Amino acid sequence: MKYAVLGTGMVGHTLATKLASLGHEVRMGARTADNEKAGAWAETSGAQAGHGTFADVSEWAERVIFAVNGGNIVQVADAVTNAAVAGKTVIDVTNPLDLSKGMPPTLIPELSNTASAGEALQARLPDAKVVKTLNTMNHQIMVDPARIPGEHDVFLCGDDDAAKAEVVSMLAEFGWTDPIDLGPLAAARGTEGLMPFWLRMWGAVGTADFNYRIVRA
Amino acid sequence: MKYAVLGTGMVGHTLATKLASLGHEVRMGARTADNEKAGAWAETSGAQAGHGTFADVSEWAERVIFAVNGGNIVQVADAVTNAAVAGKTVIDVTNPLDLSKGMPPTLIPELSNTASAGEALQARLPDAKVVKTLNTMNHQIMVDPARIPGEHDVFLCGDDDAAKAEVVSMLAEFGWTDPIDLGPLAAARGTEGLMPFWLRMWGAVGTADFNYRIVRA
Repeated sequence: MKYAVLGTGMVGHTLATKLASLGHEVRMGARTADNEKAGAWAETSGAQAGHGTFADVSEWAERVIFAVNGGNIVQVADAVTNAAVAGKTVIDVTNPLDLSKGMPPTLIPELSNTASAGEALQARLPDAKVVKTLNTMNHQIMVDPARIPGEHDVFLCGDDDAAKAEVVSMLAEFGWTDPIDLGPLAAARGTEGLMPFWLRMWGAVGTADFNYRIVRA
Repeated sequence: MKYAVLGTGMVGHTLATKLASLGHEVRMGARTADNEKAGAWAETSGAQAGHGTFADVSEWAERVIFAVNGGNIVQVADAVTNAAVAGKTVIDVTNPLDLSKGMPPTLIPELSNTASAGEALQARLPDAKVVKTLNTMNHQIMVDPARIPGEHDVFLCGDDDAAKAEVVSMLAEFGWTDPIDLGPLAAARGTEGLMPFWLRMWGAVGTADFNYRIVRA
């Protein structure tokens, strides 16, 4: 499978490296074609690895992962263009954090509660099939659930069932055996809304190596 | 211990009944002294049970539990008055749900993200020691954690350590052995922020009989 991973931060690196290690063709996307971090990643990640602009790697890919700063999701979507992702599964792992108000960050008001980064992305890329997932945990756990012992959960939501099935399959490659489908993409309001709690928990337990388990009667 | 439980809904009934069954003196508070639900509860709950106005039961009590609709928290706080709860531990189990925008409800914008019901309560009752807890689960689980098999978590936060120790003791009476302290009362932004996720999960699993477990490495 050809994956574009948009974003050159820790989350983008972790996802791109894992997908490449699984044998996929991966191109890391950045604002400019000469982005140093994307270039360095491609250089050191084997023959199946490449990089390019947000638009170019998205046009090339079969699946596109948004791993950018959630606060920039609309600008990156506009750089990608709807045409480049029409009919494709777009996987959104972002959180719309507002880093301007001190620590811990809050959510960006326009992208929370009655809105979400996931829905904003879908609105800017109407012909993409956006699926929200993996945004409720630290990046290392995303691709290595066994890092946390015992059972714990990953969630997904989206408006297209076929696209969600594709994401379930990608999650299975990462080691996630039983993802919880929360329904339509609007459920991203719920999973993105976990982030302020996650940040408090991080502060309380002093490590990002934790995850949620939904325990049922 | 003398507990005032403010609120005549399911949460108030569940907490008041549990506390009375544990041998505490409990008075259920309502807006008016002749509230029928509070009167019926007191009538059927033994000699240790009573009821009265928000102000009267709070004045009488040693500990006061806010189990009202979170959207009304400021109005109820004003009815209670700061003088009635000065120096007392005030336990806030509310969520600031906005039921005016359809289902599932969102959070009230003025009481979420950069604010919380817990902090609003503390601001209106500056001489109370507000502790937020139990607002992340269905009311039946609050007083009966064994209802859900295996390990799962309750959280608390507040600005006064002695008040938090009192709440840990009350939680232990309910059966909670290892509550997670998230720090200052501002962490209520995080726990109240779980509610939109909780509502989506409720929809997805079709039951309110679930709870969160924080699984650590």
